[in-house]
Amino acid sequence: MTTKTENKTQKNAISPTRAQNYPEWYQEIVKAADLADQSPVRGCMVIRPWGYAIWENIQRILDKRFKETGHQNAYFPLFIPKSFLEKEAKHVEGFAKECAVVTHHRLELGADGTLVPAGPLAEPYIVRPTSETIIGAMFAKWIRSYRDLPLLINQWANVVRWEMRTRPFLRTTEFLWQEGHTVHATEEDAREETMKMLRVYKDFCEQHMAIPIIIGEKTASERFPGAVNTYSMEPMMQDRKALQAGTSHFLGQNFAKAQDILFLDQNGKQVHAWTTSWGVSTRLIGALAMTHADDNGMIVPPRISPTHVVIIPMLNKAGTEGMVLEYCNSLCAELREKIYNLGSGSNSTVQVEVDMRDLRGGEKVWSWIKKGAPICMEVGPRDVTNKAVFFNRRDMDPSQKTSMSREEFVNSIASILDDIQKNLFNRALTFQKENTKKIDNKDEFYQFFTAKNQEQPEIHGGYAFTHWCGDAEVEGKIKADLGVTIRCIPLDMEKEAGTCPFSGRPSPQRVIFSKSY
Amino acid sequence: MTTKTENKTQKNAISPTRAQNYPEWYQEIVKAADLADQSPVRGCMVIRPWGYAIWENIQRILDKRFKETGHQNAYFPLFIPKSFLEKEAKHVEGFAKECAVVTHHRLELGADGTLVPAGPLAEPYIVRPTSETIIGAMFAKWIRSYRDLPLLINQWANVVRWEMRTRPFLRTTEFLWQEGHTVHATEEDAREETMKMLRVYKDFCEQHMAIPIIIGEKTASERFPGAVNTYSMEPMMQDRKALQAGTSHFLGQNFAKAQDILFLDQNGKQVHAWTTSWGVSTRLIGALAMTHADDNGMIVPPRISPTHVVIIPMLNKAGTEGMVLEYCNSLCAELREKIYNLGSGSNSTVQVEVDMRDLRGGEKVWSWIKKGAPICMEVGPRDVTNKAVFFNRRDMDPSQKTSMSREEFVNSIASILDDIQKNLFNRALTFQKENTKKIDNKDEFYQFFTAKNQEQPEIHGGYAFTHWCGDAEVEGKIKADLGVTIRCIPLDMEKEAGTCPFSGRPSPQRVIFSKSY
Repeated sequence: MTTKTENKTQKNAISPTRAQNYPEWYQEIVKAADLADQSPVRGCMVIRPWGYAIWENIQRILDKRFKETGHQNAYFPLFIPKSFLEKEAKHVEGFAKECAVVTHHRLELGADGTLVPAGPLAEPYIVRPTSETIIGAMFAKWIRSYRDLPLLINQWANVVRWEMRTRPFLRTTEFLWQEGHTVHATEEDAREETMKMLRVYKDFCEQHMAIPIIIGEKTASERFPGAVNTYSMEPMMQDRKALQAGTSHFLGQNFAKAQDILFLDQNGKQVHAWTTSWGVSTRLIGALAMTHADDNGMIVPPRISPTHVVIIPMLNKAGTEGMVLEYCNSLCAELREKIYNLGSGSNSTVQVEVDMRDLRGGEKVWSWIKKGAPICMEVGPRDVTNKAVFFNRRDMDPSQKTSMSREEFVNSIASILDDIQKNLFNRALTFQKENTKKIDNKDEFYQFFTAKNQEQPEIHGGYAFTHWCGDAEVEGKIKADLGVTIRCIPLDMEKEAGTCPFSGRPSPQRVIFSKSY
Repeated sequence: MTTKTENKTQKNAISPTRAQNYPEWYQEIVKAADLADQSPVRGCMVIRPWGYAIWENIQRILDKRFKETGHQNAYFPLFIPKSFLEKEAKHVEGFAKECAVVTHHRLELGADGTLVPAGPLAEPYIVRPTSETIIGAMFAKWIRSYRDLPLLINQWANVVRWEMRTRPFLRTTEFLWQEGHTVHATEEDAREETMKMLRVYKDFCEQHMAIPIIIGEKTASERFPGAVNTYSMEPMMQDRKALQAGTSHFLGQNFAKAQDILFLDQNGKQVHAWTTSWGVSTRLIGALAMTHADDNGMIVPPRISPTHVVIIPMLNKAGTEGMVLEYCNSLCAELREKIYNLGSGSNSTVQVEVDMRDLRGGEKVWSWIKKGAPICMEVGPRDVTNKAVFFNRRDMDPSQKTSMSREEFVNSIASILDDIQKNLFNRALTFQKENTKKIDNKDEFYQFFTAKNQEQPEIHGGYAFTHWCGDAEVEGKIKADLGVTIRCIPLDMEKEAGTCPFSGRPSPQRVIFSKSY
């Protein structure tokens, strides 16, 4: 194997670059990689085939994990009667301000000749922003005794939250997600479920998406409306802001009491159940882009990528087309027989595509670099003669190409993909560590988040790992001053007691402060 | 192998029976098999885990067929701006009468202390009843030249049609489906796609669902709003009514013209494209139930069943529990290693479940009979001693049990499942043939559909295979008189010319008349 750097100077495929304008770079990545497109519906995106294929891989792997942990899928109505939403006081407060309201059930020709809403509904429906209330109503009906518990249900669905400022994948009016809803006989069981699913999420993100995850509990001000405890995943994006990438809620008996989810316990006593809910969404695709993509486009880690190897036949030399095509197709067939370990006990064959589109070779290569396929190669007559391949690894610079005998490539494809996967994870982990700082001094903290960088106004300080006394007022002042919030009280980081640099009061452990999406 | 009929007289598990009250029998099947439950939202059902697992199998197999035929999945917005729906005249006429209209984007505390819709939208949104208009708008943006064609897209999604009379799976306000939307450079290509996908549907229904399918073209009066030609699948249900189980539409240039889907052809000329759409939905689960279920519950054909074999350990004899459990678990493990051919080139391992629920054995057996699992067995100490199994096949009467050595059972499991699959298909095909009658006389036709049967008022005549002159008035009169419609002008049945018995005019071929859902 040899690696060669081409002499051509190549300009970046994405403009602006991350350093020039991070938010615009992100929009360009989404477009250039064919992940999504804007739709004519306010705040709603269209998920394009490459983006949707990544979502299908996310779904397939997570769904398997959910089933292995005893959950069953079901499907509940899109609409929620207004009165259902109103049952839990904090819940309605949290969601009523931004929901799509269905008020009519037909259109009729109006006086001005256009169609107007007609058939008013006696009770308006809300398009589900989350399904605790409608699923809880069914649970109340289904559960009779402790024998029916635990009840472990998951739903893959679309939900709608009327967001004022939207960004593809990160915050859209409609998005796709899964929502787990479970019912337990005891507080202990429900708490165990809440933590178990949080760790399933973390493991999935790290093993498959190559995204290093910090998990922890949210403070009261950032809790899910109606939850007793909310836990979240908080990966760091390349602008050093946090993205809340998934949540798991211990709901206590709040929803069970609001919705009469009761069961006969082993002593024959009617008692309220304990519930949880947890979800991840298409936001994960945004996290994937903002963790790995570079100034040339998207980078998709092999274990979640719809395509592993793209083969581009170079058919521009007369008389060699047949030979080149034969080489590409047989290479494709050989690779497709190789097994690739996707992690968490899943295997797949290597996914290979021969790109036969009616485009110039260079255009094809760049389209795949922008999409982020892990390995991309052009195959010409010389490769056929040399029984060799000459390829780009998407975790390396596009000007660096690796040369290998065809035989060696076929035999080591799984380990090359593993290596790319590991590289991407380690790169992201290093970035997160380099930009996480233990800060025990107020001035230093304010400096960390306000140090102005004229040329990169959208690249922020990072994560401050700082003591906090637990006072919501202290938290509120920092948010007002800096736009910085407590992302979580981390679970797996050191738990040293100390002093809150803002109030001088004691603190049980440091927490993660940062800017966020 | 021996088959033994138990002497116990068993009453039917489902009441009423099909003969007593077919519509109520259907409702009971859906409930008893845990397929679905009514929800508190008007006309919307909850799909329960067993029903949803069947839907997941339908999705998995169809999705593979779609990808093999070159289609890619994508996702488009749930909401359709009112003006989009209005673009195609017939389309809006067809869907405006029954759609959920979103008019506001939040709830606010009203004068009476309850929440009222607030934040009125400038333009109301319709919750998609189907997505031709919103997907077409994106196609218009994406397609530039003939190089971009064909564009072959599929979407798995929920849709909403405000139906007045609903029935689980058959007609619900919200349902799950897939909708294929494709764009082609020529009429010929679009017509070929329309027919190809119709045949993919038919093959899927016959090979996997064991539902015999008649395919054909709809008459103008039953066409999809905006289509040039609509084709459908029309299986016969056990009450001898037809169920339209899937459709494929050739849309001509109607939507392309309404939405400006244009492309540069090979001569550099800007021309309108040709489009198709096609879909099947959760209605297929209703078709499955009404084709195969009997008076003891659901019957799920093995190739679509979430579970193939259920093993119920009989642990009521002291001292034998360990031995019985060990036998069940090792049998389960052995079976799970066997490969079962699911058809269309898909294989699966045999799906086995050891039912450890805290219930009496008899209750467990009946719960699986009602769910329709293909094979169910109780295992007791005697089976362990005899190295045997004693099982129910769901295609046979529950009082008939088959005895076999364990070794023979394990080695022949795939062929037993194949046999059940074949049996179910043949039974349904025989039923369809027995109840399809060539009728060339008007009196006989009227008699066929009106012959009163006091005891079974919901069991109808069947399919009349009768000549028709092509006149919509003739069709309308039959509908008004009898509630009978032309289900389709069949594609694969004999095409003998003759005389329309209603008008005396010539007819190019017989068509299928029947009552329908």
